[in-house]
Amino acid sequence: MFETATTTLDWLGVIVFTVAGALVASRKEMDFVGFAVLGTVTGVGGGTLRDLLLGVPVFWTQQPAYLLACMLVSCAVFFVAHIPQSRYRHLVRLDAVGLALFAVAGAEKALEAGASALVAIVMGVVTAAFGGLLRDLLGGDRPTILSREIYASAAGAGAATFVVLTILGSPRELALGTGFTVTLLVRAASLRFGWTLPRYRPRGIPYTE
Amino acid sequence: MFETATTTLDWLGVIVFTVAGALVASRKEMDFVGFAVLGTVTGVGGGTLRDLLLGVPVFWTQQPAYLLACMLVSCAVFFVAHIPQSRYRHLVRLDAVGLALFAVAGAEKALEAGASALVAIVMGVVTAAFGGLLRDLLGGDRPTILSREIYASAAGAGAATFVVLTILGSPRELALGTGFTVTLLVRAASLRFGWTLPRYRPRGIPYTE
Amino acid sequence: MFETATTTLDWLGVIVFTVAGALVASRKEMDFVGFAVLGTVTGVGGGTLRDLLLGVPVFWTQQPAYLLACMLVSCAVFFVAHIPQSRYRHLVRLDAVGLALFAVAGAEKALEAGASALVAIVMGVVTAAFGGLLRDLLGGDRPTILSREIYASAAGAGAATFVVLTILGSPRELALGTGFTVTLLVRAASLRFGWTLPRYRPRGIPYTE
Repeated sequence: MFETATTTLDWLGVIVFTVAGALVASRKEMDFVGFAVLGTVTGVGGGTLRDLLLGVPVFWTQQPAYLLACMLVSCAVFFVAHIPQSRYRHLVRLDAVGLALFAVAGAEKALEAGASALVAIVMGVVTAAFGGLLRDLLGGDRPTILSREIYASAAGAGAATFVVLTILGSPRELALGTGFTVTLLVRAASLRFGWTLPRYRPRGIPYTE
Repeated sequence: MFETATTTLDWLGVIVFTVAGALVASRKEMDFVGFAVLGTVTGVGGGTLRDLLLGVPVFWTQQPAYLLACMLVSCAVFFVAHIPQSRYRHLVRLDAVGLALFAVAGAEKALEAGASALVAIVMGVVTAAFGGLLRDLLGGDRPTILSREIYASAAGAGAATFVVLTILGSPRELALGTGFTVTLLVRAASLRFGWTLPRYRPRGIPYTE
Repeated sequence: MFETATTTLDWLGVIVFTVAGALVASRKEMDFVGFAVLGTVTGVGGGTLRDLLLGVPVFWTQQPAYLLACMLVSCAVFFVAHIPQSRYRHLVRLDAVGLALFAVAGAEKALEAGASALVAIVMGVVTAAFGGLLRDLLGGDRPTILSREIYASAAGAGAATFVVLTILGSPRELALGTGFTVTLLVRAASLRFGWTLPRYRPRGIPYTE
């Protein structure tokens, strides 16, 4: 029961993020193992940290099929990554879908484990953003989460939408779908229109004492 | 009872380190979310790793008020970080206070969880140093813990002082205060007088066989 | 009983990896604390992540003697690291031995904790590769695990050999010895003969629709 609740979203998110991680491996021209490591770490990294922080069993240690899927998907990407013309654009889109899937899946699993609303939202962001952070660190790229793009806040908006709707008694499918859509739209709009959040700017106000 | 013992020190340490993390975000001219991420990770990172390693529930999953405080403090820093004239000097001082707070708080929580003396000292160092390490890694700075400065060893000295005094039967307040003071003094002296530990130097002794 | 099963291999692996970590500290001309941090993190890092993922108590929190050994060994390296003529070659060899020890020790501990075959193999790779990954990240080197060398796959081959032999009912010593030997030989051959795995190469096949 507990398992079925999050399984479908977790599966989709894991596969989407695995493809995104393996595409980074293809851009770095890594070998098989590099594909498998980057793909798997990206795919299961966020959910792993979520489970550790919540103190529940790490999901893939109970269900090794996740690991098998990550490895098979990474290998498949090894052979077909040359087909799309613009790998980078696909990567960014896949990453946005994975972000939206994991934002609601992470928040839901946290609520099921008894976490409070704020912790559930943070777990949505952690689940959504940590896999990509590991991918960026291992791949030697600057973490997207700290870039000027709207990334973690898109995940937070979707997770918060899901948590608020759930607390208000919304049906599960509606809450999940709305949260997913919010994250995806915010992230897509940020990419499409170059939306950014206001940045801190040093101000040269001199002391006048 | 268990909670009250460490709560005050944990709160102070979390807030001080959150400010330090958010000041780094201000130096990098990040946006709101960057402030919240860097501030929160720096504030709760050390305690999170300590709790995971000790196998006890991660403190902020039980008490979401910590997360809320980290976010509010980070936002506050966003608006007032331009006021002090030398942010870098404040950052270094705050970091020293946070280091001293977490060194004794981490060691105490480890002792309460039943850890041995050596593990408690290491947990003091982990709690004190890991938040700052994450801040350095995410902010793209060289880890202070591996610099030539006296940093982890200051935390270790304070944690060891606290653990030894506790084992000798010292009142809790005296042990905490002394350990805190030792870390703070060692770190301050290191900064003030440029103290360093002896470094390894390659020696050119040729083989004569 | 559970403890004695893995203790010897764990001890050997921890000491070998601690020496390797401390040798990196000597190449970076760090101080005492840098040696202790890099040596200890390299020595216990892989087993720590394995235990966290498996949900069992982290081994060194139960047996602080590991920590003590890491610190003493790191200090010893501080004083004798100048003696060998080629520290780098020793480091690479030690690393290969530690990789082989931890690949089978990690897989065995996972099987004892009730993990499935695939999870046990992955735990062997995690235990073997994570300490070195932390060492590379903290030391500012490029992660070996993502280099073109055969590293994680050597650990995977040995861990898989051990797991398959164990499932087939082989005596424990035979399974451990064979798995250890497979990892060591594959890694040594990779270093000696420059073996690599096929890398992904971008292909310039234009679309012809």
